[in-house]
Amino acid sequence: MSADNRQIVLAQLPQGKLGPEHFAVAHTDRPTPNEGEVLLRVLYVSLDAANRAWMQGATYRSALEAGNVMAGGALAEVVESRAPSLKPGDLVFADTGWQEWAAVPARGLFALPRLEPLTHLLSVFGVAGLTAYFGLLDCGRPKAGETVVVSAAAGSVGSIVGQIAKIKGCRVVGIAGGSAKCALLQTELGFDGAVDYKAGDTRRALRAACPGGIDVYFDNVGGDILEAALFNMNTHGRIACCGAVSQYDGAAPAHGPRGVPGLIVTRRLKLTGFVVMDFYDRREAALAELQDWVRSGQLKVREDIIAGLESLPAALVGLLAGDNVGKRMVKVV
Amino acid sequence: MSADNRQIVLAQLPQGKLGPEHFAVAHTDRPTPNEGEVLLRVLYVSLDAANRAWMQGATYRSALEAGNVMAGGALAEVVESRAPSLKPGDLVFADTGWQEWAAVPARGLFALPRLEPLTHLLSVFGVAGLTAYFGLLDCGRPKAGETVVVSAAAGSVGSIVGQIAKIKGCRVVGIAGGSAKCALLQTELGFDGAVDYKAGDTRRALRAACPGGIDVYFDNVGGDILEAALFNMNTHGRIACCGAVSQYDGAAPAHGPRGVPGLIVTRRLKLTGFVVMDFYDRREAALAELQDWVRSGQLKVREDIIAGLESLPAALVGLLAGDNVGKRMVKVV
Repeated sequence: MSADNRQIVLAQLPQGKLGPEHFAVAHTDRPTPNEGEVLLRVLYVSLDAANRAWMQGATYRSALEAGNVMAGGALAEVVESRAPSLKPGDLVFADTGWQEWAAVPARGLFALPRLEPLTHLLSVFGVAGLTAYFGLLDCGRPKAGETVVVSAAAGSVGSIVGQIAKIKGCRVVGIAGGSAKCALLQTELGFDGAVDYKAGDTRRALRAACPGGIDVYFDNVGGDILEAALFNMNTHGRIACCGAVSQYDGAAPAHGPRGVPGLIVTRRLKLTGFVVMDFYDRREAALAELQDWVRSGQLKVREDIIAGLESLPAALVGLLAGDNVGKRMVKVV
Repeated sequence: MSADNRQIVLAQLPQGKLGPEHFAVAHTDRPTPNEGEVLLRVLYVSLDAANRAWMQGATYRSALEAGNVMAGGALAEVVESRAPSLKPGDLVFADTGWQEWAAVPARGLFALPRLEPLTHLLSVFGVAGLTAYFGLLDCGRPKAGETVVVSAAAGSVGSIVGQIAKIKGCRVVGIAGGSAKCALLQTELGFDGAVDYKAGDTRRALRAACPGGIDVYFDNVGGDILEAALFNMNTHGRIACCGAVSQYDGAAPAHGPRGVPGLIVTRRLKLTGFVVMDFYDRREAALAELQDWVRSGQLKVREDIIAGLESLPAALVGLLAGDNVGKRMVKVV
């Protein structure tokens, strides 16, 4: 039982682009839970653009440092419990880090239902689905007939945002990288249009794809694409600021998008930043609605599952390069 | 009566900084109102940073072009009416442009009360006061005990924003240019603190003036000062985007502030752009409250009145350089 916990450590903080060389494998003893903690066996690790943002500095959590076990959320099973709220066999979503075993405080954790497939607990019924749901509906407030644009549209959150907007009766245009993703958005996920940001002038392409302008923009990327959307917003448009993946994989950006605050004023825009945890008091009702939509086939779930703990560094590097369609995760066990 | 209407014409569009050389005086015949129009005698022309923004391109109104009579709002008296809603002697606020006489559609105009002093109809009971009122209270939503920061704090809008925030029980810090203005904010207008943006590192100075962070930032200026405020915002802070005077007097800015959208996301900020006309359905109630505050002495009104139509170009150039304290206007008659 000695040194039977494999870990991926952030060996050094990246200065520019993140690469596999910034990580190292380590072996430690399986941890022992203290009073109030649970011992978790990690099943699936969630890959998120935020993983990279945590290396840039403090966000809604403190910054990562060299030598830390790489931080990350995972679907995990309780193996041993020293807390009354959880028992062995319970499934939880926890910040385990990138390792096979973790001992973490039970506080803030709760048992998840054993759905089939389990992976949906990390995608549509996890952070990605709830982020899409609350960000679009609470911050974007789309009305039927309006035009909704979402960036990183083939990603875990974006693919769900676009489909919820369709369910709500909106015209939906996705921004994604490459013609294959753009085709998939329209043929498989029901988007009305798609813009390939790798094909050139996104501002002009958005104008062509949204001749009536944009009413709601769900921003996952920041940077030049946010700027392109800003210049196409309609008066009284709303922007849900979910993330800024274009800004994470390098040094902190030297400046922000043009049009801030000029266009915000003249077009009376509302930009709302959010973090999904702020909405967790309404989590159950949101999950019930998401489950209905999945059951009825109105909401299709795309997942991108990679095997093996040792795949995690490459999986994150690839996610930042936009390799995935749908929710990317690594199956550990 | 021939050629008895003096006008200031925008002779050429500025490429860089605006100067008196971009204007010219012209003389035309006093206009004759058509059916549905009124003939107005211009009393006081309002000077606003937005005057300069209109030269950069389309905003909430179409862009100005070389050869146009310079656009601008004014307090004016109806001399002849060909509309049932107004009669000779009525006072109105209208987009007369920079001239002594104007014939304009009566639609959208309404008779103002003959207050003393009349100039308050252009300051605290005009666009400036209503902009401060609705921008702070509706977009900023300050709560008692919170910290409110306002830029261009000695200006027409900012000086009222800060005082309303004090009335609402907030701690108020103003950003202004120069030690004289900063002193005035604290000694005359009751601000709790002031930051001189001309004295150097505004981000650091704001941190010192707001050790508990900023909850509400009322932005009149955009650019580097908006950036400095963004980095000092508290979680769930609100930014009311009223204008961007730092960006108007030159070419369109090459980029926006850092922290957009990164800080908007991680600190869950809400940025709301607004134009005062959007709130005019609640104008009467707002004016009643502003009048109460002025009457009780809780709200002090600063005005900066310059004489003579020919003073208008220099008055605007000086406003853009921050020469004024309070509402700047030019007395034409």
